[in-house]
Amino acid sequence: MSGERPLRLGLVGLGTVGGGVIRLLQTNEALITRRAGRPIEVVAISARDRTKDRGVDLSRFEWVDDMMALATRDDIDVVVELIGGADGPALTLARAVLGAGKPFVTANKAMLAHHGLGLAGLAEKAGVALKYEAAVAGGIPVIKGLREGAAANEISRVYGILNGTCNYILTTMERTGRSFGDVLRDAQDLGYAEADPSFDIDGVDAAHKLSILASLAFGTELNFADVDITGIRHVIAADIAEAAALGFRVRLVGMAENSANGLFQRVHPMLVPVNHPLSHVDGALNAVVADGNFVGRLFFQGAGAGDGPTASAVVADLIDVARDEYGDPFAMPVSSLARQPKADAGKRIGRSYVRFTVQDRPGVLAEIATAMRDAGVSIESLIQRGASQEDGVLVVIVTHASAESCVIDTLARLSGSESLTGAPMVMHILD
Amino acid sequence: MSGERPLRLGLVGLGTVGGGVIRLLQTNEALITRRAGRPIEVVAISARDRTKDRGVDLSRFEWVDDMMALATRDDIDVVVELIGGADGPALTLARAVLGAGKPFVTANKAMLAHHGLGLAGLAEKAGVALKYEAAVAGGIPVIKGLREGAAANEISRVYGILNGTCNYILTTMERTGRSFGDVLRDAQDLGYAEADPSFDIDGVDAAHKLSILASLAFGTELNFADVDITGIRHVIAADIAEAAALGFRVRLVGMAENSANGLFQRVHPMLVPVNHPLSHVDGALNAVVADGNFVGRLFFQGAGAGDGPTASAVVADLIDVARDEYGDPFAMPVSSLARQPKADAGKRIGRSYVRFTVQDRPGVLAEIATAMRDAGVSIESLIQRGASQEDGVLVVIVTHASAESCVIDTLARLSGSESLTGAPMVMHILD
Repeated sequence: MSGERPLRLGLVGLGTVGGGVIRLLQTNEALITRRAGRPIEVVAISARDRTKDRGVDLSRFEWVDDMMALATRDDIDVVVELIGGADGPALTLARAVLGAGKPFVTANKAMLAHHGLGLAGLAEKAGVALKYEAAVAGGIPVIKGLREGAAANEISRVYGILNGTCNYILTTMERTGRSFGDVLRDAQDLGYAEADPSFDIDGVDAAHKLSILASLAFGTELNFADVDITGIRHVIAADIAEAAALGFRVRLVGMAENSANGLFQRVHPMLVPVNHPLSHVDGALNAVVADGNFVGRLFFQGAGAGDGPTASAVVADLIDVARDEYGDPFAMPVSSLARQPKADAGKRIGRSYVRFTVQDRPGVLAEIATAMRDAGVSIESLIQRGASQEDGVLVVIVTHASAESCVIDTLARLSGSESLTGAPMVMHILD
Repeated sequence: MSGERPLRLGLVGLGTVGGGVIRLLQTNEALITRRAGRPIEVVAISARDRTKDRGVDLSRFEWVDDMMALATRDDIDVVVELIGGADGPALTLARAVLGAGKPFVTANKAMLAHHGLGLAGLAEKAGVALKYEAAVAGGIPVIKGLREGAAANEISRVYGILNGTCNYILTTMERTGRSFGDVLRDAQDLGYAEADPSFDIDGVDAAHKLSILASLAFGTELNFADVDITGIRHVIAADIAEAAALGFRVRLVGMAENSANGLFQRVHPMLVPVNHPLSHVDGALNAVVADGNFVGRLFFQGAGAGDGPTASAVVADLIDVARDEYGDPFAMPVSSLARQPKADAGKRIGRSYVRFTVQDRPGVLAEIATAMRDAGVSIESLIQRGASQEDGVLVVIVTHASAESCVIDTLARLSGSESLTGAPMVMHILD
């Protein structure tokens, strides 16, 4: 077996994940050779800056300035891309590698969300692997879980906690009672959040991942453009406290559903009941739930980011390539994926949490209650607290199950009202 | 794609799972064809009793009285075995099918636990698939999760809740405060437990599954004979109540660890801290945790039994076969699996829960405390309740971390003591 020809890698991108892949291949070398059936060897590496100290010894690898050369070199069997970015060099490289008939392994969710189908088409044409386990939920084998493990099922819904930064912020707010801004600054100091955190906290990163999961789960064309995205910037400490009082925890949930009404995809802070497994997903963990018509509810949890877990997923992909166990990147030929129209989210029926910040004067509650009545939304519970917020009094409402369009209609009716001192916050409830 | 030649099955065993496989293949036929790249068709079926009504229409399939004929028929591509039993017809069939160079899919954990390596050797020799996702944790793709998803990791420990019947009984005892015997009878009436429940409640079924997981996780030879097994018969309602008071829940945990000391494998009721994900696994659910050196802690949860979930796993295996995505059954050639000696469990360090039932008279507590001191076990907490049990007073002790051999030594020192009115119960604590 150790006499088998090695799988020879070109590794592009030497950030934390790239360094992690090198460390992992070295640390677990003997075991990986046994499991892969042959050695997996890094032959050539490439990154922007050759001089940077990355804490791993790179001297045994050939440094390549022009990463594009890896696509066509005869001594490279697979290219691993860890530079990121939806377009630009990563995409050029992916197209060149697959176009040259070489397998391509990537952790690049943004690129897949935007160009996944096209790249899958190239891989299919060449009959080579396009693998991306590390692109979603870090080390959790959820791409494999959907593509293969749950493949016998019609999946009606796939959802989860797909961004560790947001989950860290929300669960820290929950634990400490501190404000979003405070916790974000700490997360940035600790390296859990980027200097420019918008990709994470505005939900874009989770939406990239969700669009990939939806395609795999439903056999539909990947469609990132149709994901509705709300981040966590407007979640205030009081929302989390009120949710807790009502038996819920606030989580940024990416959720996709497929039905006769079309494809529903949304990233949105939600209220998760405390008896739901997602409510126990704390800190930087990720988790994914899939509801299948035969398997029931499958739940996967693990580390959603970090160099070790992400490297674990990248190398799992490489082992699949070394074993020659791979097939269509999105579980079926691109031409077999269904094109689903975007579902009308307004028709979804469910309970919602609505928080108003209002002036502390008579008649305000009547105004809100009237607007809800006129919009056809009935109130399950209502909490009004004393003037604890700087800018007014909080009124928190949990609605009975009603069409989401009616909740939107309520807000439209109250739009421009002088009673409201801030924008209302709507979070749907995971039932 | 629908023009591709179908994957033609011979299906042996038409109990609830066999019926589930037929229903699943019919219900999700179009989707499965898209995902598998070709139709998966049942051609011939065989079971003990042809006349039994199974609630599915079998008239479109050829009935075969001699299941062994399926092994060599040219119009059968794969045989699916769902009759069960470690030896006997299932094993004869497996050997014949693999020996004839045909892929074999099974849900038979008992057969794999006893004969898995031999069968894997036959599959390897013939270059065909031996797939068994349904053998462990029902619909949860944990075989795939370990064989492929976590393949890049050195796994130090794999453990989980592997028997839904036991988990149903323990969590019902927890919720209702009722006795083991009462709850077992109800479970039998409801069909959650067999008329002869010993395979489940004595831990044998969980041990079969654990031995399979351990081989996959560690790259060691499957070794069922070395699993230490204790079931849940001796867990009393008071154990569950005392554990709860101390912040734990009682679960039957199968745990395997690999280290320089050897291979440790044990099925045993354990105290699981309420903040550990296994403590939230209720009812008939199953869950598996794997600790990898790069990925960290992976957690898989789902339905561990039932016709739908089990059929989901069987058909996932068939899709892998149809896609030609398979390899060595135990993740590497049988000759590469390491032979590990059995670890000395006595050297394991951890906290333990020990419950004594004692006479209500002076000096008993001193006798126990002295035995523990002499055995080198120090006491973290001790609860003595009034005479609530028929046969004496309960003394419940949680030890500080100590070698398990010292806890055993404590019991040896107290063996034969007239102060004890029943056998002590030891449960280790999952820390």
